Amino acid sequence: MISFNGIFPPLPTSFDDKENLSPEKIQYNIRALSHYPLAGFLILGSNGELVMLSEKEKTEAYHAARQAIPEGKIMLAGTGGQSTRETIRLTAEAARAGADAALVLHPFYYKGLMDKEALMAHYHAVAESSEIPVLIYNMPANSGMDLGADMILAIADHPNIIGLKDSGGNLAKMGQVIGQSKPGFQVLAGSAGFLLPALSLGAVGGILALANIAPDECIQIYKYFLDGKLPQARKLQQQMIPPNTAVTRQWGVPALKAAMDHLGLYGGPARQPIQPMKPETKNKLFEILQHAGIQPIKP
Amino acid sequence: MISFNGIFPPLPTSFDDKENLSPEKIQYNIRALSHYPLAGFLILGSNGELVMLSEKEKTEAYHAARQAIPEGKIMLAGTGGQSTRETIRLTAEAARAGADAALVLHPFYYKGLMDKEALMAHYHAVAESSEIPVLIYNMPANSGMDLGADMILAIADHPNIIGLKDSGGNLAKMGQVIGQSKPGFQVLAGSAGFLLPALSLGAVGGILALANIAPDECIQIYKYFLDGKLPQARKLQQQMIPPNTAVTRQWGVPALKAAMDHLGLYGGPARQPIQPMKPETKNKLFEILQHAGIQPIKP
Amino acid sequence: MISFNGIFPPLPTSFDDKENLSPEKIQYNIRALSHYPLAGFLILGSNGELVMLSEKEKTEAYHAARQAIPEGKIMLAGTGGQSTRETIRLTAEAARAGADAALVLHPFYYKGLMDKEALMAHYHAVAESSEIPVLIYNMPANSGMDLGADMILAIADHPNIIGLKDSGGNLAKMGQVIGQSKPGFQVLAGSAGFLLPALSLGAVGGILALANIAPDECIQIYKYFLDGKLPQARKLQQQMIPPNTAVTRQWGVPALKAAMDHLGLYGGPARQPIQPMKPETKNKLFEILQHAGIQPIKP
Amino acid sequence: MISFNGIFPPLPTSFDDKENLSPEKIQYNIRALSHYPLAGFLILGSNGELVMLSEKEKTEAYHAARQAIPEGKIMLAGTGGQSTRETIRLTAEAARAGADAALVLHPFYYKGLMDKEALMAHYHAVAESSEIPVLIYNMPANSGMDLGADMILAIADHPNIIGLKDSGGNLAKMGQVIGQSKPGFQVLAGSAGFLLPALSLGAVGGILALANIAPDECIQIYKYFLDGKLPQARKLQQQMIPPNTAVTRQWGVPALKAAMDHLGLYGGPARQPIQPMKPETKNKLFEILQHAGIQPIKP
Repeated sequence: MISFNGIFPPLPTSFDDKENLSPEKIQYNIRALSHYPLAGFLILGSNGELVMLSEKEKTEAYHAARQAIPEGKIMLAGTGGQSTRETIRLTAEAARAGADAALVLHPFYYKGLMDKEALMAHYHAVAESSEIPVLIYNMPANSGMDLGADMILAIADHPNIIGLKDSGGNLAKMGQVIGQSKPGFQVLAGSAGFLLPALSLGAVGGILALANIAPDECIQIYKYFLDGKLPQARKLQQQMIPPNTAVTRQWGVPALKAAMDHLGLYGGPARQPIQPMKPETKNKLFEILQHAGIQPIKP
Repeated sequence: MISFNGIFPPLPTSFDDKENLSPEKIQYNIRALSHYPLAGFLILGSNGELVMLSEKEKTEAYHAARQAIPEGKIMLAGTGGQSTRETIRLTAEAARAGADAALVLHPFYYKGLMDKEALMAHYHAVAESSEIPVLIYNMPANSGMDLGADMILAIADHPNIIGLKDSGGNLAKMGQVIGQSKPGFQVLAGSAGFLLPALSLGAVGGILALANIAPDECIQIYKYFLDGKLPQARKLQQQMIPPNTAVTRQWGVPALKAAMDHLGLYGGPARQPIQPMKPETKNKLFEILQHAGIQPIKP
Repeated sequence: MISFNGIFPPLPTSFDDKENLSPEKIQYNIRALSHYPLAGFLILGSNGELVMLSEKEKTEAYHAARQAIPEGKIMLAGTGGQSTRETIRLTAEAARAGADAALVLHPFYYKGLMDKEALMAHYHAVAESSEIPVLIYNMPANSGMDLGADMILAIADHPNIIGLKDSGGNLAKMGQVIGQSKPGFQVLAGSAGFLLPALSLGAVGGILALANIAPDECIQIYKYFLDGKLPQARKLQQQMIPPNTAVTRQWGVPALKAAMDHLGLYGGPARQPIQPMKPETKNKLFEILQHAGIQPIKP
Repeated sequence: MISFNGIFPPLPTSFDDKENLSPEKIQYNIRALSHYPLAGFLILGSNGELVMLSEKEKTEAYHAARQAIPEGKIMLAGTGGQSTRETIRLTAEAARAGADAALVLHPFYYKGLMDKEALMAHYHAVAESSEIPVLIYNMPANSGMDLGADMILAIADHPNIIGLKDSGGNLAKMGQVIGQSKPGFQVLAGSAGFLLPALSLGAVGGILALANIAPDECIQIYKYFLDGKLPQARKLQQQMIPPNTAVTRQWGVPALKAAMDHLGLYGGPARQPIQPMKPETKNKLFEILQHAGIQPIKP
């Protein structure tokens, strides 16, 4: 059974200055981040602009990531589409490229129709057909839907569905899922903003945008927690909230990419219609990073 | 300048019982509905499961529709994607297939980043590159975002953006857009639930799921209104609200398809994870149709 | 049976510059507005800062209004509280003061518990005990809840519940309520932003914040509609949307009061924590009023 | 400086079977719960049906509570109203009755007007005039508004505002408030659903509906945490989520009162329009309590 203990960065997808996919830059970032004791990488999550890519580009991105991710590090691949057939197809592509597990965002466009029955049918069909294990992905800020504990527990009732990334930050729900799910079901925090509280409830780790630019700090919170050094964990957790907010809820993907450029990784542009950061906002961002003590990525 | 006066059905996309695209069934429905004095057809709107189709299928659907839509009837094509480049590409495909105008749902996945500036840049880039005129499409129930009047007016400020389909039902906003937009800007009601109130404010027509199954009634409300027969318009409008609710907000696409099967058109399945209607719900739906006096489609 | 045909201003509650209740100023405004052919007045609605008043002040306000409202004009009184017993008590106070009908905002603090059963029990208990007829009041922007058509129709099923003020602006719902409610049930638009569309669906009139400062225009839209002069009605309706937005959704009660001061009525302060308008915002407001052609109140 | 370390039950307000206030039953519950090492009691929070009471009843409830709360236990009093003047008056009443601190729910009816400036003015005026210290109370599920970290930090900038009860469950926000507020500012979890995660971030305790019926368990989670026994804390936390959900978000005040009756305290009815629990739902509730191992209150 694959273990997701630890910290995973959800890689942004790299584009050149004409917004064309740059597999080389994706690999450059993976290689640079591989110097840190991260548990693995997620390719094509929300920070990876999954919904911005063509069918062909998604496959290219899976392959590019796999080639660069070192042995012993887990490759998670985002494969959720709006239809069950597209999700099955993407999950098979990811498996073929060598992903270790698929992170499946639920369909959400037809919100009114996505009840427990529909989502169970969807996830179970995907899990049934997939050669790699499946994790549920709940991301209310983008999808406009929030999967409840009951729904998640019902979906989780398939042997090939082995975990959950929850980016919603409802910790009572997370506690309920951890407490009532089958043995071995692994829950991952979806944002560094609530990493420590999630660990305190039994989450096994996190898939954290912030881990792209502050891998040491994210790993350190996790280690302090494991070592029972709660005051230190709490202090570092509090320190990481402002930079995390800056690259997620506040300014999002372009801020994450600007921070990566600033710290020695490749950021580059996000795809239009996402706008580049304005210079004055970028300066505020850099001050927040500095104030939080975030250092350049090690060469 | 193309005129959108009148009633348009947003065609569901037809799938066979293996959920494969069936261009023939799309054409069958168009031909059957062409016996009614509809202004034209929308292919690949929200009812057309746009987000469920592969890139190739979208192009096939545009071509299938164009071949069946008679001369003199307008072909509107849904072409909105999450990235500007995908939207430009789809709009060009639709133009190549012979669409008369593109209906562009705004990007919405990165809700927090889709401010006025980003959406203006998006729409203006699409309009600039498109050979056919562009209409804005606001659909809050599915997108999880609601474009405000100020945003719509700013986006509308491009010569190749000529109208709006608003499915949100905020009539004060619709009135503000109609009152303050450039001369010739055409606003279309996005749901039969508020067709008459929208016409009373100056909307030129409607793109109405209900027009797939009750074309006569939708057209009649429009005509009564034009002829100043408000009491008759109001009575028919009120009568059409329950069946409209049933095939939209309440039970959605599978109900629309079930109603089409019931009334002599081709409905067929929606794509998974959308579930088929349960028999007892289907019976309730048919009672609602009957109670509203909706007749089978003319042969 | 009392008829609510026509236009009603929901009076702001007047306070002196120490924020004490000023019955005289309430009466001053009523007398000034009584020169216009308004159908009546609402005292203690959302614009009347109902939730800001002590128990004693509410009773004083009912009495002050009744003394000033001329014979032949209807007095509506807002009497909704969070508990059934308080609502019954307030409704009895309003009746004792001489109100013709009570406008009852539903309880909303315990949102999760306010289901159809609870609200039916509430409204029916109030209607049962009340000597004056009761209207339902739906105000989602303030209450954080939106009563659906089914719920309204269930509540309306009591002989002493005779109408609805809906400020939500969902016209499809309004159409359904009008089409399916018992004979004689009277629906009133709750905002001038959608007066004409509501009338087109069968609403009998409106309770409109804007009617405090533009009574002529609100009445004129209504008359144009009755006379079948739809183009004129539409033009005036569109013209009234910006000033209506300004004194409602955009800047609210302090803007309404500032506009009243500006136009020759008594506005005065709103109660803290509502802040006074900033001078520059006030200037924008006055420009909007001027641009819409709104004139000082007749002496 | 008063310390809020520990666990506080927010007492339901007791009514007899005619829904009249029963000060004796309030005191009975306080005396029974005083056998447990609770830090104190909150009278008139959301569970205390604050919005359901008359002005006179609120004062009576404050006095009743004070008489029964033993020396050495803190008395917190809910005193938030919609106007600043009412909140000042209620806070003075609570102080006069002997409350140790006031828990002030923010005004929320005029949501659109309750910006940072208005709420700062409100809280600072209350804090300025109050003889007892003030805590901010954020309760989005009932108020329909969610105070952000920036707003809370701005409000907290007054020497007499010394803490926060947050019932929203956004732990990233809670972490930001704890990390950035002035020294000595005390944050309390507002629900047992996220007690442990809140403690892990630096919260000093909790005001927990569940502490009315499971005081031992709530105190035990807190103690395990203080003693560094995280696995035990986590297990008990997970166990308490279902009963907590049952008496809060799922079935609310009537479930809390039914559970109190069931476990040997006085529950009694909630005020109408809150409906009594149906027998079959009550049985489900009792099963959940039993399954979680919750014992009758000690005599």
